[in-house]
Amino acid sequence: MPRLASQATDFPQWYLDVIEQAGLAEHADVKGCIILKPYGCALWEAIQKDLDQRIKKLGVQNAYFPLFIPESVIAKEKEHIEGFAPQCAVVTHGGGKELNEKLYVRPTSETIIYTTFARWVRSYRDLPLKINQWANIVRWEMRTRAFLRTLEFLWQEGHTCHATKDDADAMVRAALDMYAAHDREFLAFPVMKGKKPDHEKFAGALYTLTTEALAKDGKAIQAGTSHNLGQGFSEAYDVSFLDAEGKKQRPWMTSWGLSWRIIGTVIVVHGDEKGLRLPPTLAPIQAVIVPIYKTDGEETAVLEECHTLEKNLAGSIRVTVDDREEKSPGFKFNEWEVKGVPVRIELGPKDLEKKQAMLARRDTGAKEAMPMDQLTVTAMQKLLEDIQQTLLSQAEDFMRSHTHTVETRDQFTKIIDGDGGFVWAPWDGSIETAEHIKDETKATIRLLPEEEMSVQGKPDPFSGKPATTMALYAKAY
Amino acid sequence: MPRLASQATDFPQWYLDVIEQAGLAEHADVKGCIILKPYGCALWEAIQKDLDQRIKKLGVQNAYFPLFIPESVIAKEKEHIEGFAPQCAVVTHGGGKELNEKLYVRPTSETIIYTTFARWVRSYRDLPLKINQWANIVRWEMRTRAFLRTLEFLWQEGHTCHATKDDADAMVRAALDMYAAHDREFLAFPVMKGKKPDHEKFAGALYTLTTEALAKDGKAIQAGTSHNLGQGFSEAYDVSFLDAEGKKQRPWMTSWGLSWRIIGTVIVVHGDEKGLRLPPTLAPIQAVIVPIYKTDGEETAVLEECHTLEKNLAGSIRVTVDDREEKSPGFKFNEWEVKGVPVRIELGPKDLEKKQAMLARRDTGAKEAMPMDQLTVTAMQKLLEDIQQTLLSQAEDFMRSHTHTVETRDQFTKIIDGDGGFVWAPWDGSIETAEHIKDETKATIRLLPEEEMSVQGKPDPFSGKPATTMALYAKAY
Repeated sequence: MPRLASQATDFPQWYLDVIEQAGLAEHADVKGCIILKPYGCALWEAIQKDLDQRIKKLGVQNAYFPLFIPESVIAKEKEHIEGFAPQCAVVTHGGGKELNEKLYVRPTSETIIYTTFARWVRSYRDLPLKINQWANIVRWEMRTRAFLRTLEFLWQEGHTCHATKDDADAMVRAALDMYAAHDREFLAFPVMKGKKPDHEKFAGALYTLTTEALAKDGKAIQAGTSHNLGQGFSEAYDVSFLDAEGKKQRPWMTSWGLSWRIIGTVIVVHGDEKGLRLPPTLAPIQAVIVPIYKTDGEETAVLEECHTLEKNLAGSIRVTVDDREEKSPGFKFNEWEVKGVPVRIELGPKDLEKKQAMLARRDTGAKEAMPMDQLTVTAMQKLLEDIQQTLLSQAEDFMRSHTHTVETRDQFTKIIDGDGGFVWAPWDGSIETAEHIKDETKATIRLLPEEEMSVQGKPDPFSGKPATTMALYAKAY
Repeated sequence: MPRLASQATDFPQWYLDVIEQAGLAEHADVKGCIILKPYGCALWEAIQKDLDQRIKKLGVQNAYFPLFIPESVIAKEKEHIEGFAPQCAVVTHGGGKELNEKLYVRPTSETIIYTTFARWVRSYRDLPLKINQWANIVRWEMRTRAFLRTLEFLWQEGHTCHATKDDADAMVRAALDMYAAHDREFLAFPVMKGKKPDHEKFAGALYTLTTEALAKDGKAIQAGTSHNLGQGFSEAYDVSFLDAEGKKQRPWMTSWGLSWRIIGTVIVVHGDEKGLRLPPTLAPIQAVIVPIYKTDGEETAVLEECHTLEKNLAGSIRVTVDDREEKSPGFKFNEWEVKGVPVRIELGPKDLEKKQAMLARRDTGAKEAMPMDQLTVTAMQKLLEDIQQTLLSQAEDFMRSHTHTVETRDQFTKIIDGDGGFVWAPWDGSIETAEHIKDETKATIRLLPEEEMSVQGKPDPFSGKPATTMALYAKAY
């Protein structure tokens, strides 16, 4: 197995190497698209399962809407089509003929779903209407990178319709909190939460809330986002309802989505020089048992003990024995480390003699002998919980130590050009300044604070003008 | 709620009415496409979950391949492209520009997946390679009907690669048996299994095995199919492996798929004059509790009892209380009947007095009082198992009584023009005769027998020529 590029010195190449060597994905023959390989697909399925349960707990029901959006439908909301049209793939021929009307491959589904909501919503009794779909999406990207930016990607998109702005605000918030809880409890990393500045919000939205994780190279990576779409889409798609007094009203829409980009996020947040590190909740294989033997005579007894252990743990723990004959233990150690399996259990003739096994933790690298009679389901579950907690703590520590508050341009650029991370700085509120900072430092505003952070008449460190708010800056994926 | 069309006198309209009134799906703004509504989506999710477990038990791993197939890739297997090109949607523009190479929206994924297999398969140690994907598919259909034939549909497609024809044959068979078991054990209906005649096989396949269910209107409906693709795709996509002796070999491919058409199959196999009838294993709601009260004073006690019962059953049974105030019990009875919920539990003031509830079975229509203290999880589970078994028995009886063996043209047409159903008849083996029979009777050959059925020198009843095999005929969806 080839060596990984160094995470410390060549993070971008390390990222690509991990994806290849862990067997997560590979480039397809279609430019900009990837093939989600079995191990990557298992991660996505686990993420889907956890998130789907959380979505349903919010009273949201799944549905499925068409892949194609007729040009006349997508073009109704002006800001939206302006934002998305340049990114769309367009079907012009079908069934051997040129079509009368072009079909856009969905770049997101607000337009087709709200056309449907116009039929579904009649009365205040129909509200709130909460729908989610798991779907593939196409956005024409010129510069792609596996999981982070691909021409086609998988995601979920929630779409809801509410009687009042307050209800819509609450939904937007609930979706954001759900993403943050999924990240923390299932994927074991913290996120920053807040509002996007206006110039970074979703095309056609009133405002956008975002979750932003921090990669090990000090760059921010946007996870799930949640949008209050106001009443613009209701107007454009003529969605209305009769309130309790029989008066016609325009409902408020929200949408929120999370894509397989979250797999890329797991890689860059938890990965280390040896490859992927998976939180046990997410890991398709939580523990791998590697038999170690040198002579033929040893083989039978060692393999037997491995399979007995597997049988004892299976059902409660996702465990497997790597009994490939053609691969050496060293090769196997490397492979399972790259794949991020939380626990490796080694079993050799000497361990059999001592009635023990060697346990290696992927999170800390710690290795210790454990008596076989203590290697129970309960002990393993406790160990896995500890690994889960450790990964979360490490990610929290990293984010904490890489989040700074600055007042001057020098402080700002020193951090951004150095180790990177999040930088809180006063902002004068103008797009011009934000653009200027981006040009000069490559850092962008990731979000604005949720709770007021005083700027106490401080100036924006770049424009010198009075700041109107604090803003969280970082270089980003 | 509008009445359903009669199943007995207008089956096609009844089918559409059930889909609308049960809230399964509706037409989209894109011609030929449907919107899978929450209740329909819940059915598809349940089917996916059951089938996915069965697929994984066959040692198959999930992956995901791109939606788009470059023209140069799809065109490599000649029979395949000839079969599918006229049905394809074609993307000619992306990112605001005309593309250098057209992209086909996948009508099935053999071509893109086998291009990938060419990279994944090197040695006999890599075989068998067994991959499945859950995906959306586009085939340009002129005459569409919800679930049965739609421009876009959801399905799973399995793709495997084997060292020998025997291994491929065994896989094709295992996939077919898996579909039949899913139909019987989960969806509670029997299927006929067999081989498609050559002129009905998958474009590019060596042979196709099929499962065929029987609708209540006497028409056959194809469920899952499984294809041995031989070595044609291996040749076309240059997939090869080194065998144990180091010799280069062409592997054998199989593919097999099942789509959301299976939801349509459930409707036409189990439905009755009152609408859908769902097997309890599949039903998103297995039991609905309907409170019955006339005066305000009764309401509190009745609702309280309903929710207590719900709480006692929930967790083990998928149960809900229909406590909508604005709907009458009669309206609710109709709605849950159309939706096919297996058990309705009615609770009114008189039932409270008598410490009982009324149970109505959707399968038989039987209604009986049950003492509240006997309405346990165990009792409900037993009842649901009985309903599952009854639906299966009914479907088996129907298929048995609607399967005939004939020798003459008169017998053949009398059945096909009458109640319909399956007809075994001697066939001379020629496409011409099959086409002639189709033109004259609208019946097609659904499959050829799996085990030899003697034709004892009998003539084909239409051509008069000696029969070479028996064939199973039916009108079909």
